Amino acid sequence: MIKVKVPATSANMGPGFDTMGIALNIYNYFFVEETKGGLEISGCEDDLCNENNLVYKSMVHCFNLMGYKFKGLKIRLEGDIPLSRGFGSSATCIIGGILAANTIAGNPLNKEEVLDLAISIEGHPDNVAPALLGSLVLSTMDNDKVIYNRLKIAKGLKFCALVPDFTLSTRKARAVLPKTVSYKDAVFNLSRSSLLVSALMNGNFNIIPQSCQDRLHQPYRSKLIPSFDEIFEKSKELNSLATYLSGAGPSIMVILRENDNDFVQNIERFLEGLPHKWKVIELEIDEIGAVVENI
Amino acid sequence: MIKVKVPATSANMGPGFDTMGIALNIYNYFFVEETKGGLEISGCEDDLCNENNLVYKSMVHCFNLMGYKFKGLKIRLEGDIPLSRGFGSSATCIIGGILAANTIAGNPLNKEEVLDLAISIEGHPDNVAPALLGSLVLSTMDNDKVIYNRLKIAKGLKFCALVPDFTLSTRKARAVLPKTVSYKDAVFNLSRSSLLVSALMNGNFNIIPQSCQDRLHQPYRSKLIPSFDEIFEKSKELNSLATYLSGAGPSIMVILRENDNDFVQNIERFLEGLPHKWKVIELEIDEIGAVVENI
Repeated sequence: MIKVKVPATSANMGPGFDTMGIALNIYNYFFVEETKGGLEISGCEDDLCNENNLVYKSMVHCFNLMGYKFKGLKIRLEGDIPLSRGFGSSATCIIGGILAANTIAGNPLNKEEVLDLAISIEGHPDNVAPALLGSLVLSTMDNDKVIYNRLKIAKGLKFCALVPDFTLSTRKARAVLPKTVSYKDAVFNLSRSSLLVSALMNGNFNIIPQSCQDRLHQPYRSKLIPSFDEIFEKSKELNSLATYLSGAGPSIMVILRENDNDFVQNIERFLEGLPHKWKVIELEIDEIGAVVENI
Repeated sequence: MIKVKVPATSANMGPGFDTMGIALNIYNYFFVEETKGGLEISGCEDDLCNENNLVYKSMVHCFNLMGYKFKGLKIRLEGDIPLSRGFGSSATCIIGGILAANTIAGNPLNKEEVLDLAISIEGHPDNVAPALLGSLVLSTMDNDKVIYNRLKIAKGLKFCALVPDFTLSTRKARAVLPKTVSYKDAVFNLSRSSLLVSALMNGNFNIIPQSCQDRLHQPYRSKLIPSFDEIFEKSKELNSLATYLSGAGPSIMVILRENDNDFVQNIERFLEGLPHKWKVIELEIDEIGAVVENI
């Protein structure tokens, strides 16, 4: 049997809309084996235990690309990544499916080809790239080709995810974005995203609070998320380095210095007073990315 | 006598409008001494050898800030940086003047204060920051405070400046920029500027050609510069890594791999066939920034 472990990812980091995605140390696991026939899927909601399952669809895509004829499949899903909360759970299904299929077929695809296929299924590279490669990955599409760079982040940071009990559809979160923006806002984000990337790389963490500001997506999406402004305000007051919407939300991510021992307890107390339930998850960067094992 | 050596700077690198500036190894030199009285300026055009001289005005600003009463000044300018061509020559005058005044007064200002004062005179940090600090500096204003990060660039690159025989006023180059841009173009630039910064830092130079694209200033300014499109096209054809407008132009900067031995000769031959005269200057990154000497 093949086991694929794929990390959660947090995309759209602050000013880095559609560009900056980071892998984090919570995981989904995919246990896959080829069988004599039929399809058996377990570990997800009943209405997804069929041919519409994204892991299965990604495997079929991959098998077709490689010209590999499979007989049957048995797929089991496990994992800790919250669903539809802005942590790239669908990206884990795509990467998990492709890597499992590639392994079954004897690894004809190299990492670049796995990434290209994952992007063609997901539609954008923001989550699948860090899920596959680990660490912080910058990526964008240039015509139909991905440009990306996997970065080593300076030591000294940790992350904290604030995960609400409600979901937000990516479609809805996309729909509130404008068609045009002011020239000033465009320059605001390009300067901040450049500064944020550089600070994460060279360890000049003092500039993260100013660098992690955004004017291109968060101001539009904040109204879709109850208590958004209060949480951002409180997080700043509690000396976080930065607070940003994870992916298309609704989860909120906080960047902390690794020696911050007070934030989690204090934000938990604050979140308890809000109308919705919020779960706090302490996280670190995953530097390895997806891992395949024969078990 | 005090001698201040200040490097040229190239701002607005590709997608990094109002953000990315790099120090280069051509210099202006400022020889300054306090005298018993009067003002004597040499080494510049006659109409600037007076109280309107930017070096002198920067010194007076600095003296006033420090509460230092000077009697007279003798200032001599020398240097190799082309004037009004997009290489931050005015930034060198400001940095030169402030550092000379600070030295005369016994160095009451630290580097941060020198930078803040320089920005207040120049109006923006793009050129004065790398001129003072050397290397590549990312900077922007956050309300009235500068945020900046000085970066170490991976080894393996060199630069080539193409300097025309005409000038372009920064005012005119600013005037052609739009008030709003499409959302797509805003995201295009933030992703490219982030990728470009990361590639320069971690040495993944293969992505520089795609990362150094811009949609926020060069498309608008290109029509102000004769032969702009032809030169960009030719530079690409000659295997440069990237081509961008230096500062507000009109000079064009080319990024090359350091082992590229053909580009300069080939572009010189090409430029000879154009209507205007273009000078080609091979450059390297200045990693030191402004230097003060008592001579």
